[in-house]
Amino acid sequence: MTIEQELAQQTARDWQELEAGTLRFAMIGLGWWTLEEAIPAVEQSDFCETTVVVSGGAEKAARVRDEHESIERGLTYDEFVDGAATEAYDAVYVCTPNALHKEYVEAAAEHGKAVLCEKPLEASVERAEELVAAARDGDIPLMTAYRMQTDPDVRRMRELIRDGAIGEPLAVEGHMTQTMVEVVSEDTSNWRVDPDMAGYGASVMDLGIYPLNTARFVLDAEPVAAQASMRSDSQAFSDVPDEAANFLVEYADGTTASCIASQNAKLSGRFSVIGTEGELTIEPIFLAQTPQTLTLRRGEEQSITVDTGRRDLMGHEMTEEFDYFADRVLREVSIGPDGEHGLQDMRALKAIYDAAERGERVAIE
Amino acid sequence: MTIEQELAQQTARDWQELEAGTLRFAMIGLGWWTLEEAIPAVEQSDFCETTVVVSGGAEKAARVRDEHESIERGLTYDEFVDGAATEAYDAVYVCTPNALHKEYVEAAAEHGKAVLCEKPLEASVERAEELVAAARDGDIPLMTAYRMQTDPDVRRMRELIRDGAIGEPLAVEGHMTQTMVEVVSEDTSNWRVDPDMAGYGASVMDLGIYPLNTARFVLDAEPVAAQASMRSDSQAFSDVPDEAANFLVEYADGTTASCIASQNAKLSGRFSVIGTEGELTIEPIFLAQTPQTLTLRRGEEQSITVDTGRRDLMGHEMTEEFDYFADRVLREVSIGPDGEHGLQDMRALKAIYDAAERGERVAIE
Repeated sequence: MTIEQELAQQTARDWQELEAGTLRFAMIGLGWWTLEEAIPAVEQSDFCETTVVVSGGAEKAARVRDEHESIERGLTYDEFVDGAATEAYDAVYVCTPNALHKEYVEAAAEHGKAVLCEKPLEASVERAEELVAAARDGDIPLMTAYRMQTDPDVRRMRELIRDGAIGEPLAVEGHMTQTMVEVVSEDTSNWRVDPDMAGYGASVMDLGIYPLNTARFVLDAEPVAAQASMRSDSQAFSDVPDEAANFLVEYADGTTASCIASQNAKLSGRFSVIGTEGELTIEPIFLAQTPQTLTLRRGEEQSITVDTGRRDLMGHEMTEEFDYFADRVLREVSIGPDGEHGLQDMRALKAIYDAAERGERVAIE
Repeated sequence: MTIEQELAQQTARDWQELEAGTLRFAMIGLGWWTLEEAIPAVEQSDFCETTVVVSGGAEKAARVRDEHESIERGLTYDEFVDGAATEAYDAVYVCTPNALHKEYVEAAAEHGKAVLCEKPLEASVERAEELVAAARDGDIPLMTAYRMQTDPDVRRMRELIRDGAIGEPLAVEGHMTQTMVEVVSEDTSNWRVDPDMAGYGASVMDLGIYPLNTARFVLDAEPVAAQASMRSDSQAFSDVPDEAANFLVEYADGTTASCIASQNAKLSGRFSVIGTEGELTIEPIFLAQTPQTLTLRRGEEQSITVDTGRRDLMGHEMTEEFDYFADRVLREVSIGPDGEHGLQDMRALKAIYDAAERGERVAIE
């Protein structure tokens, strides 16, 4: 097969072995992401179904329940924690502010339910460690919700790197920026700028984690050290160090990633891996802008760009993520981005924030 | 004028006021760059002429002289320093290994000749300071040869940023990589991997200086602090710290640049400025790969890409650079990238190398 054919070939669902089955979900946290992305993505999935929704208010939970045929129960957080309706779901999707993940994962572990938990795993390394320990003690499957790891273009990029398409990978360049500043300037109590809820900060925790983790995934290498520069200019970001951040991450394979994250810049994402013999780029990426393209450059002129034609990109990525999780849980096999994987990013995130504060290179444990 | 029209409009020679005149050059150093790029570029120029060539060997100087009609004299370095044929040229182009710049600029200053000196200005801050002082004492015009500053796409990018096309600039992303490792592995005495000749290192001095200086130019902001990560894996680069480097530079306007330089990666260059309302990218850039395109992205979908059609890009950039210098010298007006400008990059380069060595953020004086 030529490299052109290889590039154009979809790597979608190279992970799938499940042929039939259904994993019933309780959705924890009914913010816009759950309502507009997660629940519709599950409706498109092969192996998942939303049967329970959990919110702070009984009314909201009931309203969302009534809007979807598959949903049997609407619970408050307290009811969920207390073990209501455990017969109605097999797994939970945790999509609350970072600092609330632990409580609901601990409850799910007590109820013996599998967990798909949004990233970053928690607000701090310590809390994430406790979260992972709770899942381990409860002997429940735990996946950190990195939707990039089930994006077909990202999986294709990883496969091409493994196949030597760019020679030896040498450096990663990635950025993810958006205009969150507009949202939080209107809504100053937004949890993303509240250190008690968000954790270490606002842009690296929320955005920088995308290139950070995508590099880990496509290089198959762990981060070993970080450096960073952060700034918060807007009033809305005065309680966190990073309205915007540039950071460097050294990986164990000798590559180094240069990354940019900003909550006060045009919506933009790009991710490149430069190697001895070529360069792979996905652009745009991370923010579901379409058409997302995968480009391979080799030699001086040769450039091949593939658009696989997906247009509802975020929805598609979430569907892939939910079905991947179901495939893993229902077949009782190990999960790629498991709790330990998510915990390692928490350590890297902490190192990035420490590096910016101290103005020095910080090793990642 | 619409932004589309503005983008497509060439910014070429917005600097030119000279209508006639000729600046006669002595070319100092007859390596491949001078022979294959500089002399042909001068032949294409409006206001420059090569009349003298200077090399280590009298034979080589004579051979190059005989190959070009305009060239009257071929000199050895010693003859040039001693003041031979000063009536035959008005200015010198210094294109020797970094650590030899000072000696020839000092000689040119003694002879009262204008100097166009390749970047980086010298091998160290101290030597660059002495070089700049010599030019000042001799009251001669001195330009640091940043060909990006006369590239029409780069000038257009700067103009668009000034006009607010991307709102407030927030972050710069740039990389420049090439396969120099192949050259220096064959030629282990190559000056680029000899600290006595190259100075602080190999990739940031030679390549990283491009995004570093291009960011200064388009942002019109000075670098204030640096962080970096460097590595040398190949035997050929064992005497320098940076076969490859990732570095962060903070600028006085609050923007931060994330840059990558490598002498052991596929030939590749890209330069982006991300702002609150848009993003400007030149890709490819720095290495004369064509078609070089300038792209402006605003809003979520709007993307405009312009290829101005140049194909002999390096030659064209060098022609622009020489004519810009002639325009400045013959009209006796100030030069944008003058000696002080080049010296400031030397300070930034030193800070980048110090930061990598010390593993900490280093302020730039």
